[in-house]
Amino acid sequence: MPSLYNRVAGQSVERLAALSDGIFAVSMTLLVLDLRVPASEAIHSERDLGHALIALLPRLIIFLMSVMTNGIFWVGQQTQLNHFARADRNLAWIHIAFLCWITLTPFSTSLLAEYIHYRIALLVYWFNIVLLGATLYWSWSYATRSQFIGEDAPEDIHAAVVRRIGIAQTLYAAGAALCFINTYYSIAAIVLVQVNYAIAPRFCWGIFSRKSENKRGAGEI
Amino acid sequence: MPSLYNRVAGQSVERLAALSDGIFAVSMTLLVLDLRVPASEAIHSERDLGHALIALLPRLIIFLMSVMTNGIFWVGQQTQLNHFARADRNLAWIHIAFLCWITLTPFSTSLLAEYIHYRIALLVYWFNIVLLGATLYWSWSYATRSQFIGEDAPEDIHAAVVRRIGIAQTLYAAGAALCFINTYYSIAAIVLVQVNYAIAPRFCWGIFSRKSENKRGAGEI
Amino acid sequence: MPSLYNRVAGQSVERLAALSDGIFAVSMTLLVLDLRVPASEAIHSERDLGHALIALLPRLIIFLMSVMTNGIFWVGQQTQLNHFARADRNLAWIHIAFLCWITLTPFSTSLLAEYIHYRIALLVYWFNIVLLGATLYWSWSYATRSQFIGEDAPEDIHAAVVRRIGIAQTLYAAGAALCFINTYYSIAAIVLVQVNYAIAPRFCWGIFSRKSENKRGAGEI
Amino acid sequence: MPSLYNRVAGQSVERLAALSDGIFAVSMTLLVLDLRVPASEAIHSERDLGHALIALLPRLIIFLMSVMTNGIFWVGQQTQLNHFARADRNLAWIHIAFLCWITLTPFSTSLLAEYIHYRIALLVYWFNIVLLGATLYWSWSYATRSQFIGEDAPEDIHAAVVRRIGIAQTLYAAGAALCFINTYYSIAAIVLVQVNYAIAPRFCWGIFSRKSENKRGAGEI
Repeated sequence: MPSLYNRVAGQSVERLAALSDGIFAVSMTLLVLDLRVPASEAIHSERDLGHALIALLPRLIIFLMSVMTNGIFWVGQQTQLNHFARADRNLAWIHIAFLCWITLTPFSTSLLAEYIHYRIALLVYWFNIVLLGATLYWSWSYATRSQFIGEDAPEDIHAAVVRRIGIAQTLYAAGAALCFINTYYSIAAIVLVQVNYAIAPRFCWGIFSRKSENKRGAGEI
Repeated sequence: MPSLYNRVAGQSVERLAALSDGIFAVSMTLLVLDLRVPASEAIHSERDLGHALIALLPRLIIFLMSVMTNGIFWVGQQTQLNHFARADRNLAWIHIAFLCWITLTPFSTSLLAEYIHYRIALLVYWFNIVLLGATLYWSWSYATRSQFIGEDAPEDIHAAVVRRIGIAQTLYAAGAALCFINTYYSIAAIVLVQVNYAIAPRFCWGIFSRKSENKRGAGEI
Repeated sequence: MPSLYNRVAGQSVERLAALSDGIFAVSMTLLVLDLRVPASEAIHSERDLGHALIALLPRLIIFLMSVMTNGIFWVGQQTQLNHFARADRNLAWIHIAFLCWITLTPFSTSLLAEYIHYRIALLVYWFNIVLLGATLYWSWSYATRSQFIGEDAPEDIHAAVVRRIGIAQTLYAAGAALCFINTYYSIAAIVLVQVNYAIAPRFCWGIFSRKSENKRGAGEI
Repeated sequence: MPSLYNRVAGQSVERLAALSDGIFAVSMTLLVLDLRVPASEAIHSERDLGHALIALLPRLIIFLMSVMTNGIFWVGQQTQLNHFARADRNLAWIHIAFLCWITLTPFSTSLLAEYIHYRIALLVYWFNIVLLGATLYWSWSYATRSQFIGEDAPEDIHAAVVRRIGIAQTLYAAGAALCFINTYYSIAAIVLVQVNYAIAPRFCWGIFSRKSENKRGAGEI
């Protein structure tokens, strides 16, 4: 009986991962549709095309920011799924909700690309990030309570995951608050937080944590 | 000889699952294309953008409803695939038909989002759900007759799957019938049925079934 | 040394399958974009919407035909991949070419949906099917010559695969030739060939083949 | 402890591969959207449609070139992933960057298809290829330094991968430089380089390398 349960539940974690990879793949690729090729009526020379491409730069930055947003949450969700020894239907639905917010990212990215000076667009984008973080937190706490975490997970992984989501969301909220001064400051702050997580994760991490190098290996990617 | 057959057939179930995950992923992500970013000509202030986003709320509800529709049928199909020890070409084609109805959901969702007051749009959406349920039922009954169900499936799984599809389709039909009063009532009823299945499956389930907790584990997710 | 080779090559067959499932999934879902929701300017009543949906029926038939085209070639490619014990770079490129023709199907489908009365549109659609069949044939003959077929494949599988592609392409060519009378005859003929392969494969198969039931199991799906 | 690390890291390589296959699949399928079906207003006869399709030929060539670009980098990334015994978070982010450039290929392809006579469009396309090559090189050198390469990889694989990326990028740069004479020469040169890599890899390879046939098997696809 338990072997059956594990087999079926294990397959479920795998298929949850497969659905997630598919949704992240489509969502990340749809983001590029905001980089619209300049309309040919207005382009009569190399110079015109060059100017039109330079005018696309803000959209390119939004695009890169959203690819990073997706990448960060892909790594975060993956870390969780890799540690789940089992799953149940509730957990599957928590992750379907998570994936629903991921499919919203092309919309909120598009909105921000179109209305880069508008606070509301920035706050919608930020709210999308909040939904993603809250649902990942929900997933982890539900899995912990239901004892779905595999036995080989490091002891302090619970604290690490919770702290990580908390710090990231605090930084995002602080960045989003800057939009009341200027939306560009907000975008710069969010990009900085993301680059920090993607390229130099040790910085933020190091301040708040004394986890040893050995243990960190298991809790990441 | 049987080991060959199982190996090839087993790979087929896996690839059927992979194709399904891909189609669900694309279909769920395409749903977001109905949330169109407000046209910039009409937006001159934060207030304008706020109003334009509020006007998008009905489309957001349709979007969430369709993500739930996809999620419910993804969980339903997955449960079946996880219990199949083998497959054959007919079963593959039944699932290709099922996936064909899934690829139609972005169309029927779009139609309903555009014509939310029209009964025909609501009935097309409902008919899409009927096709999905009927094909899943067909898949299960064909697999049962062909003895494709793995030996470790719980004894009463057949009754549970059949009852589940029957109850869900009855509730959907009742919800759809409300469109002759008002399409909003129908949408509210369908969303309620779906939220019940996604968030609190025990409610509906509990009324009609006395399955023990132990056995339920295997038949779900 | 051989174990290394097998491991790497085996992974390659798996990733080829994963890329294929992804491309089929996206391509099949993009087909639905030809079913455009009627423009709201022309719709003022339930009756208008009903008529507009009825006017979509030819496009719906083209859509269903293309889902079947994709389904048939997915099953065909899958059968081959399941029998490959190894792969090399040339085989990978043959399958990338095959997938390239698959990504063309949304274009040729769209062309036919828009120009259903034009022979050229029908011939482009048919040429797409020819490319798919020819590339699958090329894949199989290359894999056979390179001895990539697994040892547990049935003896007469080579003849069965070759015969099957030959018969199907002959029927498609005959169907396409009908376009010189009327493109609707062609579409009806192609749909009939496809329904025959999908729903009742024994018919065509049975005429030309005396393969026993036992052996057929391994060569299909 | 090492077994845990390997398990989690191994799952990560698999999911990286799954995300990659998904993104390549979506990106390759989106390329076809540049082949726009001729607008029906201008088509009044078979002859009109024929001419409109012939006018699509340059776009078809760009489409085929981009499918090859994607195919080449898919094979290249796959070769690397197949040899990685482990991964860490930095490697995951290098590959997310790589996939980000892949999602840009539909944009740069679309730009080139629309502005085929403009040097800037050609140089943007080439820069996209440079980013892809540089990131793959970065991935390989990081993985080598971090000792992520599996023990069964052939001895000279490092030199082979580095040489291969170097030669390919040199040829691409030479081809792109031709755009200062005529962009069509550039496109022809890039297509030639790609066809050479896809169809007849031995040619370029043979000039610069004396690797034996035996060893080559492991380093490819």
